Amino acid sequence: MAKELVFGHQNPDTDAIAAAIAYAYLMKQKGYDTEAVALGEPNDETRYALNYFHHDAPRVVKTVANEVDKVMLVDHNEPQQSAPDIAKVTVTHVIDHHRIHDFNTAQPLYYHAEPVGCVSTIVYAEYQQAEVAIPKDIAGLMASAIISDTLLLKSPTTTDKDCHALAALAELAGVDPEQYGLAMLKAGTNIADKPAANLIDEDAKSFTMNGQNIRIAQVNTVDLADVKPRIPEFKDAMATEAKKDAYDLFVVMVTNILNSDTLAIVVGNDAAKATFAKAFKTTLTDDTAALPGVVSRKKQVVPPLTEAFGG
Amino acid sequence: MAKELVFGHQNPDTDAIAAAIAYAYLMKQKGYDTEAVALGEPNDETRYALNYFHHDAPRVVKTVANEVDKVMLVDHNEPQQSAPDIAKVTVTHVIDHHRIHDFNTAQPLYYHAEPVGCVSTIVYAEYQQAEVAIPKDIAGLMASAIISDTLLLKSPTTTDKDCHALAALAELAGVDPEQYGLAMLKAGTNIADKPAANLIDEDAKSFTMNGQNIRIAQVNTVDLADVKPRIPEFKDAMATEAKKDAYDLFVVMVTNILNSDTLAIVVGNDAAKATFAKAFKTTLTDDTAALPGVVSRKKQVVPPLTEAFGG
Repeated sequence: MAKELVFGHQNPDTDAIAAAIAYAYLMKQKGYDTEAVALGEPNDETRYALNYFHHDAPRVVKTVANEVDKVMLVDHNEPQQSAPDIAKVTVTHVIDHHRIHDFNTAQPLYYHAEPVGCVSTIVYAEYQQAEVAIPKDIAGLMASAIISDTLLLKSPTTTDKDCHALAALAELAGVDPEQYGLAMLKAGTNIADKPAANLIDEDAKSFTMNGQNIRIAQVNTVDLADVKPRIPEFKDAMATEAKKDAYDLFVVMVTNILNSDTLAIVVGNDAAKATFAKAFKTTLTDDTAALPGVVSRKKQVVPPLTEAFGG
Repeated sequence: MAKELVFGHQNPDTDAIAAAIAYAYLMKQKGYDTEAVALGEPNDETRYALNYFHHDAPRVVKTVANEVDKVMLVDHNEPQQSAPDIAKVTVTHVIDHHRIHDFNTAQPLYYHAEPVGCVSTIVYAEYQQAEVAIPKDIAGLMASAIISDTLLLKSPTTTDKDCHALAALAELAGVDPEQYGLAMLKAGTNIADKPAANLIDEDAKSFTMNGQNIRIAQVNTVDLADVKPRIPEFKDAMATEAKKDAYDLFVVMVTNILNSDTLAIVVGNDAAKATFAKAFKTTLTDDTAALPGVVSRKKQVVPPLTEAFGG
């Protein structure tokens, strides 16, 4: 059987990397020749989890068609968020929890998506169904992914399935979810010594909404006061990126993971910024807006923006 | 919980109707308010199965947005093959075994696709996982769907999962798959007393391939000699349809279900017909071509055509 690469989206977060590792291992037990890879280096949070559970980071690849003919995707389906040469390979499996968009195949495939908080929750269900035992280190990474995606089960994307999976995985991994989770989340909010240009690229995704090129990044913090004085630096970095990559709108969600609030910084053309304000029934002050209770890009930012842009 | 309609593709075949009935029943057991409907009347084969297992045909609907805000799709995802107003509703669940094409959602959803012969095989797995008992009549319809889609497990689309599901469902339904299956398939090949214009519309699907409008219909028979004298009648009916609906290419697969061969009748513009010939490495004689061993539109006709048209 020809080798297949398994990977998550660009700018990988903990779920993109943990789910790739976990799904590649599961499929190997089922007889596939798989290797988990990543479309970028792990961020600080993911590195904390990998270190904690003594697991190597997956090999970083820039393209995939030079290595394989077939791939398996986790935590994404949109070509814009995938390998730049994704059109040259056949996608045989997808495990995801996002909307389906611009994803076209020539052949039937295995596709398992559920509207849950974390892809690792779905991968956990795949293990259960296949009756394959989850190694302790992989269970720890999957638990880390659920903690990361659901902000310790506090995000509105959290479902009962995420709660059950986290409880089971944390037990397998031998960690207390609350204690380990807070330490891991804090490790990912180390923003003081990083330039804004890096921070806005670490967890960023691109979307096309009615022909408009939209970029939405998320930066977690435990204290908004760390970020507020740096807003001009963020806006400069965002404007540079927006110009370089022709974004009509660039939104950075600065999310306080302790109290579940977001400060949005918004850069773009006037019409796009007005559409953003309309989407969230707010007004922009110096290109920022407080979004109380907003923590989820997928559930609380993408849908209203998509609707405001008209599709 | 608001009511959701569950339905298969236009020109429903036995799987489209059986899977809708079976999935609607399963989801009702899970607490959803569902009703199975159909986007067309059952064909002769499906009617045979419904009569045999004493199950009512699902209500036929022309549109869905006038009744509900949310729907569940079985056996299709491409908007072209769905309700004409599908864009006005939210798709919450998809159970399918086709390629994914032009299917875009604004929100995450439940999507379970596998490259197996029949959607009812996947619905069977959903019942197993939910540990819901399958009523005898619904098991019979699901078995009928697997027999229909795999031509009694002889189509190259057939997988081990289809074989296992058919064995289990036939036992639940109390039928011998071979004996019942042949009778059901023959009931669906009653073409002598139907005009070609009807036959080419009963199991027909539309595809867009690189901007070209392609229609592919399938007509089953137990004796190609029944069809050959009627080829001019078929071509006339196809040309009329192609003109009316602006098809660049219209292919009718006349499939002998006993020996697993197909005679293709091909109508369209010269370039499209030449692309068809190239796709199957054949030449057209009076707009027909023998395709030995070809029985599956999805696995043996759509992929080579898609490739020949360039995507």
